[in-house]
Amino acid sequence: MPRPTDRTRIHRHPERTDDDPDVLRRILDDALTCTVAWVDADGLPRALPTIHARIDDTLYLHGSRAARAWKTAAAGADLCVVATVVDELVLARTSPHHSMNYRSAVVFGRGSEVTDRDELYAVARAITRHVLPGREDDAAEPGDEDWRETLLLAMPIDEASAKVRTGPPVDDPDELALDVWAGTLPLHTVAGVPAPSPDLRPGIDPPSYLAEFRRP
Amino acid sequence: MPRPTDRTRIHRHPERTDDDPDVLRRILDDALTCTVAWVDADGLPRALPTIHARIDDTLYLHGSRAARAWKTAAAGADLCVVATVVDELVLARTSPHHSMNYRSAVVFGRGSEVTDRDELYAVARAITRHVLPGREDDAAEPGDEDWRETLLLAMPIDEASAKVRTGPPVDDPDELALDVWAGTLPLHTVAGVPAPSPDLRPGIDPPSYLAEFRRP
Repeated sequence: MPRPTDRTRIHRHPERTDDDPDVLRRILDDALTCTVAWVDADGLPRALPTIHARIDDTLYLHGSRAARAWKTAAAGADLCVVATVVDELVLARTSPHHSMNYRSAVVFGRGSEVTDRDELYAVARAITRHVLPGREDDAAEPGDEDWRETLLLAMPIDEASAKVRTGPPVDDPDELALDVWAGTLPLHTVAGVPAPSPDLRPGIDPPSYLAEFRRP
Repeated sequence: MPRPTDRTRIHRHPERTDDDPDVLRRILDDALTCTVAWVDADGLPRALPTIHARIDDTLYLHGSRAARAWKTAAAGADLCVVATVVDELVLARTSPHHSMNYRSAVVFGRGSEVTDRDELYAVARAITRHVLPGREDDAAEPGDEDWRETLLLAMPIDEASAKVRTGPPVDDPDELALDVWAGTLPLHTVAGVPAPSPDLRPGIDPPSYLAEFRRP
């Protein structure tokens, strides 16, 4: 369960802070990818995108054993993970009042490598399901040799915050008379036409869950 | 023009490095938002999402004068900006071979506040256009008072890298016989039905560019 700390306090637009842990969980579930930031040995910031999944109040990050970044993260570096979902464009009459109805989650903490075999397989399944629900029942499980390359990090969703904007644009009263359309434009990420792999065996149809992909 | 440095060298899947500056520029243009990471006074990593736009080889970040984060950034803190576009889900026969055809850009450097009046207005227009092409001709320009709240930072796209994955899934030869569909699933972010602002003047129709929103 997330707890507020000085790091999680939202200073800008504090009214957009959402303390409901379900809101935070939902953001992590809805965001297809996240960005992981850390401080490198040179004292400078680094960040990279990755895939994640949530199980209860643990955030799992998918990394590579061969990457320096993930070695640093697995060694216990402090991390800051950001997940962002844009629900709507907010179109005001004047350009500075434009905004987005977004939901963003920030999780602070350290990751620890998942080593328990059952947990490894549960997380692999959760990540597959996170990306494309339904796929986890089709895709063959990892073999034990796959863990030589892939690294899974567990981060408690403990020190974390969620920020949410909703609603129409807010223009100044004297701008309401402008002859400009104003409102919100919902955005959805949907699937296009699937392309079979060139080496796909004949006679295997695309599964129905492909067409059902939709976020948020 | 981006130059390679030790920070921009891609260690994991170096074959996915794309040195074409147009590829890097296109990623920054296609990504609706980006994530900005920096090191806070406590030595710990921080990151937040924001809106950006590119003009030539300068990356502009939209910040708030009231936010501590942006004060830190405007004061010349080292930044690491990540922009990610997911083009396709890559569905392999086994779960560990799943991937994404993504394009990610990482830009390192420091931001400086835009203070030139002409540049401020050009960047405001570029950001509006970045989010929704066509909107920049409709939305009223900022007033001079809007710059009391909004901060625009310019970052040279100098020390930067792009990483790109394309193509079908790569399964092991002995997995090709599995009875599992494999291939790529393209993702597109499109607009839903626009919702007029409750205070919209009657008789203003939604502009045609709303329906044309599509990324990537």
